[in-house]
Amino acid sequence: MQNALTISGNNLTLDDIYQVSHKHRPVEIEEKSMELLVNTRKLVFELSDRGVPIYGCNRGVGWNKDKNVTSEMIIRFNSNMMHSHAVGVGPYAPQEDVRAAMLIRLNTVLLGCTGLSPEIAVLLKEMLNREIHPLIPERGSVGEADIVNLSFLGLALMGEGLVNYRGKEIKAKDAFKAEGIEPVTLREKDGLAVISSNAFSAGQAASVLFETELLLKTADIIACMSLEGLSGNVSSLREGVHNKRRYNRQTETAADMRKYLKGSYLYEPCSGRPLQDPLSYRCVPQVHGAVRTAMDYAASNLTIQCNSSDDNPCLLYEEGDIASNGNFDPLCWVLGMQNLGIALCHISRLSCLRTIKLASPGFTGLSRHLTPDEGTIAFSTIQKSFANLDAEIRMLANPVTMNTYSLSGDMEDISTNAPLVMQKDKKIIDNLFYILAIELLHAGQAMSLRNAGNCGKGTGAGYKALRRVVDFYDSDNRILSIDIDKAYTLLKSGDFLKSVLNGLED
Amino acid sequence: MQNALTISGNNLTLDDIYQVSHKHRPVEIEEKSMELLVNTRKLVFELSDRGVPIYGCNRGVGWNKDKNVTSEMIIRFNSNMMHSHAVGVGPYAPQEDVRAAMLIRLNTVLLGCTGLSPEIAVLLKEMLNREIHPLIPERGSVGEADIVNLSFLGLALMGEGLVNYRGKEIKAKDAFKAEGIEPVTLREKDGLAVISSNAFSAGQAASVLFETELLLKTADIIACMSLEGLSGNVSSLREGVHNKRRYNRQTETAADMRKYLKGSYLYEPCSGRPLQDPLSYRCVPQVHGAVRTAMDYAASNLTIQCNSSDDNPCLLYEEGDIASNGNFDPLCWVLGMQNLGIALCHISRLSCLRTIKLASPGFTGLSRHLTPDEGTIAFSTIQKSFANLDAEIRMLANPVTMNTYSLSGDMEDISTNAPLVMQKDKKIIDNLFYILAIELLHAGQAMSLRNAGNCGKGTGAGYKALRRVVDFYDSDNRILSIDIDKAYTLLKSGDFLKSVLNGLED
Amino acid sequence: MQNALTISGNNLTLDDIYQVSHKHRPVEIEEKSMELLVNTRKLVFELSDRGVPIYGCNRGVGWNKDKNVTSEMIIRFNSNMMHSHAVGVGPYAPQEDVRAAMLIRLNTVLLGCTGLSPEIAVLLKEMLNREIHPLIPERGSVGEADIVNLSFLGLALMGEGLVNYRGKEIKAKDAFKAEGIEPVTLREKDGLAVISSNAFSAGQAASVLFETELLLKTADIIACMSLEGLSGNVSSLREGVHNKRRYNRQTETAADMRKYLKGSYLYEPCSGRPLQDPLSYRCVPQVHGAVRTAMDYAASNLTIQCNSSDDNPCLLYEEGDIASNGNFDPLCWVLGMQNLGIALCHISRLSCLRTIKLASPGFTGLSRHLTPDEGTIAFSTIQKSFANLDAEIRMLANPVTMNTYSLSGDMEDISTNAPLVMQKDKKIIDNLFYILAIELLHAGQAMSLRNAGNCGKGTGAGYKALRRVVDFYDSDNRILSIDIDKAYTLLKSGDFLKSVLNGLED
Amino acid sequence: MQNALTISGNNLTLDDIYQVSHKHRPVEIEEKSMELLVNTRKLVFELSDRGVPIYGCNRGVGWNKDKNVTSEMIIRFNSNMMHSHAVGVGPYAPQEDVRAAMLIRLNTVLLGCTGLSPEIAVLLKEMLNREIHPLIPERGSVGEADIVNLSFLGLALMGEGLVNYRGKEIKAKDAFKAEGIEPVTLREKDGLAVISSNAFSAGQAASVLFETELLLKTADIIACMSLEGLSGNVSSLREGVHNKRRYNRQTETAADMRKYLKGSYLYEPCSGRPLQDPLSYRCVPQVHGAVRTAMDYAASNLTIQCNSSDDNPCLLYEEGDIASNGNFDPLCWVLGMQNLGIALCHISRLSCLRTIKLASPGFTGLSRHLTPDEGTIAFSTIQKSFANLDAEIRMLANPVTMNTYSLSGDMEDISTNAPLVMQKDKKIIDNLFYILAIELLHAGQAMSLRNAGNCGKGTGAGYKALRRVVDFYDSDNRILSIDIDKAYTLLKSGDFLKSVLNGLED
Repeated sequence: MQNALTISGNNLTLDDIYQVSHKHRPVEIEEKSMELLVNTRKLVFELSDRGVPIYGCNRGVGWNKDKNVTSEMIIRFNSNMMHSHAVGVGPYAPQEDVRAAMLIRLNTVLLGCTGLSPEIAVLLKEMLNREIHPLIPERGSVGEADIVNLSFLGLALMGEGLVNYRGKEIKAKDAFKAEGIEPVTLREKDGLAVISSNAFSAGQAASVLFETELLLKTADIIACMSLEGLSGNVSSLREGVHNKRRYNRQTETAADMRKYLKGSYLYEPCSGRPLQDPLSYRCVPQVHGAVRTAMDYAASNLTIQCNSSDDNPCLLYEEGDIASNGNFDPLCWVLGMQNLGIALCHISRLSCLRTIKLASPGFTGLSRHLTPDEGTIAFSTIQKSFANLDAEIRMLANPVTMNTYSLSGDMEDISTNAPLVMQKDKKIIDNLFYILAIELLHAGQAMSLRNAGNCGKGTGAGYKALRRVVDFYDSDNRILSIDIDKAYTLLKSGDFLKSVLNGLED
Repeated sequence: MQNALTISGNNLTLDDIYQVSHKHRPVEIEEKSMELLVNTRKLVFELSDRGVPIYGCNRGVGWNKDKNVTSEMIIRFNSNMMHSHAVGVGPYAPQEDVRAAMLIRLNTVLLGCTGLSPEIAVLLKEMLNREIHPLIPERGSVGEADIVNLSFLGLALMGEGLVNYRGKEIKAKDAFKAEGIEPVTLREKDGLAVISSNAFSAGQAASVLFETELLLKTADIIACMSLEGLSGNVSSLREGVHNKRRYNRQTETAADMRKYLKGSYLYEPCSGRPLQDPLSYRCVPQVHGAVRTAMDYAASNLTIQCNSSDDNPCLLYEEGDIASNGNFDPLCWVLGMQNLGIALCHISRLSCLRTIKLASPGFTGLSRHLTPDEGTIAFSTIQKSFANLDAEIRMLANPVTMNTYSLSGDMEDISTNAPLVMQKDKKIIDNLFYILAIELLHAGQAMSLRNAGNCGKGTGAGYKALRRVVDFYDSDNRILSIDIDKAYTLLKSGDFLKSVLNGLED
Repeated sequence: MQNALTISGNNLTLDDIYQVSHKHRPVEIEEKSMELLVNTRKLVFELSDRGVPIYGCNRGVGWNKDKNVTSEMIIRFNSNMMHSHAVGVGPYAPQEDVRAAMLIRLNTVLLGCTGLSPEIAVLLKEMLNREIHPLIPERGSVGEADIVNLSFLGLALMGEGLVNYRGKEIKAKDAFKAEGIEPVTLREKDGLAVISSNAFSAGQAASVLFETELLLKTADIIACMSLEGLSGNVSSLREGVHNKRRYNRQTETAADMRKYLKGSYLYEPCSGRPLQDPLSYRCVPQVHGAVRTAMDYAASNLTIQCNSSDDNPCLLYEEGDIASNGNFDPLCWVLGMQNLGIALCHISRLSCLRTIKLASPGFTGLSRHLTPDEGTIAFSTIQKSFANLDAEIRMLANPVTMNTYSLSGDMEDISTNAPLVMQKDKKIIDNLFYILAIELLHAGQAMSLRNAGNCGKGTGAGYKALRRVVDFYDSDNRILSIDIDKAYTLLKSGDFLKSVLNGLED
Repeated sequence: MQNALTISGNNLTLDDIYQVSHKHRPVEIEEKSMELLVNTRKLVFELSDRGVPIYGCNRGVGWNKDKNVTSEMIIRFNSNMMHSHAVGVGPYAPQEDVRAAMLIRLNTVLLGCTGLSPEIAVLLKEMLNREIHPLIPERGSVGEADIVNLSFLGLALMGEGLVNYRGKEIKAKDAFKAEGIEPVTLREKDGLAVISSNAFSAGQAASVLFETELLLKTADIIACMSLEGLSGNVSSLREGVHNKRRYNRQTETAADMRKYLKGSYLYEPCSGRPLQDPLSYRCVPQVHGAVRTAMDYAASNLTIQCNSSDDNPCLLYEEGDIASNGNFDPLCWVLGMQNLGIALCHISRLSCLRTIKLASPGFTGLSRHLTPDEGTIAFSTIQKSFANLDAEIRMLANPVTMNTYSLSGDMEDISTNAPLVMQKDKKIIDNLFYILAIELLHAGQAMSLRNAGNCGKGTGAGYKALRRVVDFYDSDNRILSIDIDKAYTLLKSGDFLKSVLNGLED
């Protein structure tokens, strides 16, 4: 069994999130953090006793911020808040995203700015470790704290909502029963502490970054295979060239590509080879490097989100005070995630353009559309498929963070549409796996036809991985849609990348 | 049983399509049209015998247009064409869209420009009438003839592909067997005749227009209910006002609204009522009328598509000739359908803005967020739901017809992304039904709270229809997400509209 | 001297507007219309005397609609309204647009819905006929009545604002003095009658349509010249082909193109000619026809705007009443103008793609980049110029009608951004004249190089018109930027079209 | 006189660029860099003598890369390259941008990757120091090396092109004559070395960043003034709050705002003040901080561009070799600059929304539209002005980096539209200065009306700066357009910021 990840609100990395959200690594809460929770919980009551108005504790929320909430009302108030804020619209988020969201909310709660009841933090941890996953609709949040989505987590904590437990959709209380644990009652400030956070979209963002990481590595390898399919020029990958450009991520990408191509026949002299290839081949390190830099911009700011307080009001424990604020605005990292979607467009364009070249005898010296013989049609109409998917990506690249309304009596007049940004990114990435799948079919077919000698260590392994699921296209007697699906699954599952990385080590 | 619709290529209306695609009205082919098919089929062979080069008959297609296809090759060539062109990407299109596509393709074939084997037209008709529906992936076409999607129809005609038959996904040949009919063999020019058409996206477009029609009527009624909820001013609906503006569709909309409001307390004098309401209330006939005009622009040009030839090459029977051409370019009506999506954005904005007003005491004189009492939160966070859905609509309004690549050796250098346009429109409409559902919840709640006297004949019926599925919101003890879903289903199913229209007749 | 155009509010055509705005045709007001003005003016006072609240007359405007305006205040109120509403942001609109706006406002005033003082209508007419043109900033209006811009017309009518008079920017009162006429005083409802109208953006829209008309004809001819440059196939222009497609505007476009190409060597047999050309050549009638249909959609709805009342409140003379309303919402025709910009994108794409083909020996059989000899670079980098201009056009095609705020205390919660739509359209058109200019340089160069025999009657005239300003490119000793500018000016001025039309008649 | 900036290709900062581009600081070239230039120049000839094919030296460029260029042809080849690549489209770039471009190109040349003749580097330096500025059209480049624009620099270096010299547009050779210096002759590889660089758009980008810096500081101050106008809550600016959020740029912004507000009456207790202000007030540090982080992302990658080689081919001096590559792809920093435009949208939204609140008695407790008395209209229609300018900004935020064509025989199949991105950013910023100007008018008016006691040290200085150019709005007897222009000029010139910073030090 995996050793547990101990969290404290301060050091959660994206890789930690991945281990918990995707690999179900168990989670523990640092002892000092539990102490802080206890102390900050006390502070809430002290402040309230002193008559300090506290939003979501002794005062209403949103437009109702001017209404008193008395202690008799508090349980019903919190329960009502979960019901009335549960206004999400489907579909439900994937479990990985939900786990990431739960972990992030739990981690930032530990900073002691919420005043959450400690037992709620513990239940949250237990739900993670026992794999009780609330069903949370993806849509409905405007991305200025995901109160819409996290209310479904709140309902689950109360035992009310639905959860996915061991593959079934059941009531939270039934899952708790099965595990022998108890739901909690939300009291002073608890409701707000659970829902007033960007943890849901931050969890989605983490998933997007994990997928992007896989996508980019996959794209690097396929670009190398296409270069072999083209019999292109490797001079543009030379280390000296990239050192002169001084972009780290570009330099790294080129180094990786040289690794994949190590031992390839492309490094042998060849008389017919042109001095330069089309830019979609020549600029791969520059473009993939640029996208990685865009990813870094997003990731570094998302990491701060996952290790800081976005709570309002925010307890200032050191000052023994509480303060209204705007820390729930997540624009800083949402801009990064939105920009990533735009950046990914360029991965798509390069892939499409490389694929077009592979079908073109003027660039490859091979047969038109990579047909095995004169009478076969082969990869002709398949160009429409990637062009159409790319057109959708292009549309999804348009920004949405400013498509907002002024809500709640004009109090909540800005927002970011964070979850919509993540939905767009995910769709872009999914389409891209199809597009890369089609490029892979071309690259593999060109490599088969060329049969030019040794492939690179990585590209050779990629070729073999492809051939395990899709045969050489030798005649038009099969439906190409099915080949596309097989290649897509190979890539999106990560099996392709794994095969190539294993190949490098052989 | 319904009487059959007889088609000839010339007079198919959108309503006819609706009867066949949604209501499964049987189809017959006009006798003269069958004769024309026989004669034009002959013409193909005469021309080919004379040595006239015919794309897709004795010459290849696409970039392979310079390659000969001999009569020995012809069966394999056509079969290959279906396989290699079947490069769609899921999900599968709804059966209504598939039926509409089949009907449209069948209808335009009857114009005698394809030279299709008459028995294939007959099989197509039989499949419609016997409800054998090919599974056709929605994505993959660039919208310059939907060869990608219609190949799946071609496969089904050959008995190969998958179909939905009586609710099950089975092989076409098994469905044929069950019905005692035979698949066909595609021969000279048949493959191209089946697939080189925009019938697939035209079928989708027809479905979009049917949904738009329902949506607009629903939106008219809900706007009237909101006006009652607001206790707004009906003077802006006066006939004289709209006659001065001279836009027919605006005039009609206002007339319908007056019908829905007939008998409403809004026509009784009321001292507190302001001279003018916010524009989202006052400009409903103008905006809904403008969207209807946008719909007319789309519909009239789509109707031409459904009754004209988009075939290349195109037989010119009267001239005894065949000609290469660009008639497969569907831009004229695709622009209309794209513009419709933009227009629908405005329906969304008005609905969102009206709903915001209903939650605002400054405009309604009712309680904040339409709460039944002080301690209830009610329609506070629900504003996020429609704002988020509207943000997605705003994104989907960005145009895509120009997001294209130059394909097939730069021969197919333009396209329209027609199916993507329709997918966007459908998503916009679906989101809009949610947004209107939320407005309806507000309007109904305001009407309940106001309890001001008689409702209009239509609005009263609408109110009752709502209350049959969603109760008055009297406390925060239920999850609002569920209310939203119920109201959405009420609207999207058409039951709401039906109830209101029935109410008018009482 | 031209005979005057007599207007009555009912029959103004776009061509009439062109005659007045661009050709300075004098304007007269129909006698019956003057009578109606007198009578409706009386009605205003009768209603006011009866105590009917009238927005902008005895009540304030906008958010101030609840404030009384007494008759003592009325002159100052109207003067104040002009000052405080004059919040435009530069640059100033071209005089043609201003003239069109003045004419449209004058025409619709004649419908008798404003109650404007008759002498103001007369002064407006005089200003048109005496060419006294107010300086009106283009920006600042949200396109829900152009009160921002028309206030500058109001200031001029009062003698206050600046006007362009005989080429100089002077005070309105000085221009009036020079012409021996008097400014007016704005009284009851006059201010609102002058400014509460979409006439300004309607005037801009009319100018856009005039430019579009020129652009499309120019594009038709240049496409024909490119077809000659390519030595392409005219079969796709055959009448029979277009009759089968049944889109009128497509059919017309093809007929015009056949006229331009009449007598061309393209109609002579030629062994090397491929069966089909790239779609950017083959689909010209389809795409240009589609854009014309988009133009018709815009134009027909704009024409209604120019002959109907967009006034609020609106006098209902027949009913002896006045009514609040939302007739100032111009969405119906603004959607059309916005869609036109999107449609024009496709003109751009076709031109760019045709030009790329002309530089490509694989399509033309001519030299690469149409160089006159081996040592010359010629039309290589010039591809960047049109690609960049097209990228800007693509951006400008994104819709803006929904980019709005809720203003004036949430009363004016929707708008259309009409003037921004027109600014975008104008920029798209201007860029397009550059793009077509570059295509023309290519087409002419290819025709020179090919020297294939007789050109068409129209294309030959076009070739000569080009050569009058730009010589054959025989060496790299001149700056291509200058050639581009010359060709652009030739096209945009209309001289090119005129030369070709004259050529047809020879 | 300023001391010179010594450059070497390695350490140029954005601030250095500002000093040279805007403040005309003289430039010197480090001695070692001159040596490197001499040595790398030699290397070019050695390689060429050895028969190594070198693009732009002994081989053609672009699609002509397969053509030989002999030494007899070399002078004409380079001259031709400048002429045929000079295909820009106006308007001309501002001189600051041109100076920045010249400096950046000069700096990166010093890295020794171009092989440029040393005397050309010297002439470039002289032109900078003697203020001889080539006229360079802004449009026409696709942003994959700005060959289109930099050709105009090349023409000037040859003495041919036009320059701006001491305020006049004259021939370069005349300016050289006046300064007693000589033009150069472009020889082997020189032409390419001058033009194959992104220096032009990098220069524009530098200018954009300088303007952004000014804009953001200005926006911070005005937001503070609006907070005073609103009599809002400063608790959201507390240091403790921002420390919990851990975004550096947010923390800094809040600190600056506290500085501007130091001593303000907002820090005094006030009974009526709400617990929380609308988000457009409360989230200023979060949003302005996020935009600054977006700026950092752009600036850091732009700085690498200014200190690295984007040359192709690239001399690898250490290896004694030359290599083809794709280093001219600038996507990494262009994405950053594009994202900055999107980020700036949010500055605009906040400003618009704050301004709307200032006109609203419900938020300010002041008069509607900040009228000085009942009879005045004041800031009513002015809301349209900023709404319209913001709508344009929203449109300009749509990305363009992927709106590209495949050019030069499909060799140059990707690009970035870098200069278009910068043009968009500039327009966004310019519009924003207008929008902030309108907010300033409101904030100042509200401060005047409130007259609540001491202003903050910075906000008080801002108020005084405003009042030096625009008086209190006491009646509708002036045209508001003029006030807008005055405030805009105050802000854009930097005078406003200067006054406030001076005020802080008093």
